[in-house]
Amino acid sequence: MHAAVVAGGEVAWEVRPDPVPGTHEILVRVEAAGLNAADLLQRAGRYPPPPGAPADIPGLECAGTVVETGPRVERFAVGDRVMGLLGGGGQAELAVLHERVALAVPDGVATDAAGAFCEVFATAYDALFSQGHLASGDRLLVNGGAGGVGIAAVQLARATGARVVASVRDANRRAAVAELGAVAVAPDATRDHAPYDVVLELVGGPNIATDLADLATGGRVLVIGTGAGRAAELDLGTLMARRATIRGSTLRARSLEEKATLSRNLERHVLPLLASGQLVVPIERRFACADVASAYERFAAGAKLGKIVLVAATHSTGTATT
Amino acid sequence: MHAAVVAGGEVAWEVRPDPVPGTHEILVRVEAAGLNAADLLQRAGRYPPPPGAPADIPGLECAGTVVETGPRVERFAVGDRVMGLLGGGGQAELAVLHERVALAVPDGVATDAAGAFCEVFATAYDALFSQGHLASGDRLLVNGGAGGVGIAAVQLARATGARVVASVRDANRRAAVAELGAVAVAPDATRDHAPYDVVLELVGGPNIATDLADLATGGRVLVIGTGAGRAAELDLGTLMARRATIRGSTLRARSLEEKATLSRNLERHVLPLLASGQLVVPIERRFACADVASAYERFAAGAKLGKIVLVAATHSTGTATT
Repeated sequence: MHAAVVAGGEVAWEVRPDPVPGTHEILVRVEAAGLNAADLLQRAGRYPPPPGAPADIPGLECAGTVVETGPRVERFAVGDRVMGLLGGGGQAELAVLHERVALAVPDGVATDAAGAFCEVFATAYDALFSQGHLASGDRLLVNGGAGGVGIAAVQLARATGARVVASVRDANRRAAVAELGAVAVAPDATRDHAPYDVVLELVGGPNIATDLADLATGGRVLVIGTGAGRAAELDLGTLMARRATIRGSTLRARSLEEKATLSRNLERHVLPLLASGQLVVPIERRFACADVASAYERFAAGAKLGKIVLVAATHSTGTATT
Repeated sequence: MHAAVVAGGEVAWEVRPDPVPGTHEILVRVEAAGLNAADLLQRAGRYPPPPGAPADIPGLECAGTVVETGPRVERFAVGDRVMGLLGGGGQAELAVLHERVALAVPDGVATDAAGAFCEVFATAYDALFSQGHLASGDRLLVNGGAGGVGIAAVQLARATGARVVASVRDANRRAAVAELGAVAVAPDATRDHAPYDVVLELVGGPNIATDLADLATGGRVLVIGTGAGRAAELDLGTLMARRATIRGSTLRARSLEEKATLSRNLERHVLPLLASGQLVVPIERRFACADVASAYERFAAGAKLGKIVLVAATHSTGTATT
């Protein structure tokens, strides 16, 4: 097969051996695979893949068709349309998924949207609900509302009855984020809507002091991204007075059982919203797999609304919608 | 009645009007009342009491005998021995408690121990279990193991099957903390026993970076005290990689329903251990109520193992044990 291969800070579409599904795994012919920030880190040699994932093939999510099943697979059969979370290896013609982390693509959902769905919606769901216990009526701030996870979070929070404020640096993109259900404001205007019960922090260190100061009693700050820096100043007096929680997480290094549990939550709580059209997967741009280097450059350039997706040749033009 | 009254940075035993119990409240003749760090802050004018608490009478815990009950009190009768959490006003001859936050003093527990029990054990219980989800087999670090909350935490954690390391600055007090069930070490030696599932941070800002670095995946840092400073440096990359939680809290400003829920947890999970002698309430020194100013000075001097307790005249000598 061909696959995106990272080496020496570069990524290229090269030939690699076909992966072989294990006992409980499925082999998927990949039709779409989203890019995520972790891929750029891996290209730079700064995000080693977890054990079991291919050493040099990035890709944390993909969608496609099952072409082979391991001997004890129960959930899927050859020909099924699936999508899922991977520890790596999704940006390839063939990928192996454990059947417990694969999800059936709902009817009517385009393949490129499916291939760009899992990582950001799983990350947002896990942070907001499993960790942040966001509930109807809560006030949520999404710091970094126009990125992939931000867009997913805005929609999931709105669908659950929360009131959502999103900071969006690029004024030109605020209208699009507002259309998804948030009050979209400049980063320095989030205080006007405080206090917040939950803050989803996708920007990083410089925001933490304000996040904490603007928190309601018992509020939670979930730290998922640190693009603007890792270093934060923390006033413990404010932390105590707010009875606040600051929590960080990543998805990639989690165990199979944790990812499987998260996949069940997505199936139960999120897929119905995707199937009914309440959730959309905005796509900034599609790239043919062979053009993976350009896709990474576009991702790195930032200022995008939604996902960058690699699509297999038969899906690279026109057939998919968001 | 007489009461400890704070004004202008001083505390004195002065005459104040008797408090009157409301519909669901009990009036308690106080026989013992523990001192806590919040009292020193209140003496300094830096910890205003929550709404409903006396403006100038400190005291977050006490024990004594019910002398009057409000018209709809159901849990207690005149003559009962009780102890409980207060928003303030415990350091007085008479104190009013809502019946839902009052606890029956188990038979065999000395009154001075009962009067110094609630605040520290409630704080430790709430932090370790309600917030930190400490469980059997977990590894706990108590930073500041020789203070009131530290001693309570060490004992509660041991009783639930956790493995406990306690940092104790004063080498002379390590043996006593070790006897309660912890590996007692100097503050700079806690790393030798890492990683920790839970860190109870009673010292403050300077410890946070190490707390986080020494945490196990999914670990929790509970910040309850900041005697060594409020300012902390937080590396969000470590927070995310550890999938860590940093949580702060205080007890005093909580709502009645929160304090009542905590009191039910104490009744159910902690009082049986106190009644059976598995938990002890070490008392560093008792002071007669009229000598309240000296009691505060002793508390402020630090380097103590266990509690400083005000005792009513009939209880000031000999009759109580720890």
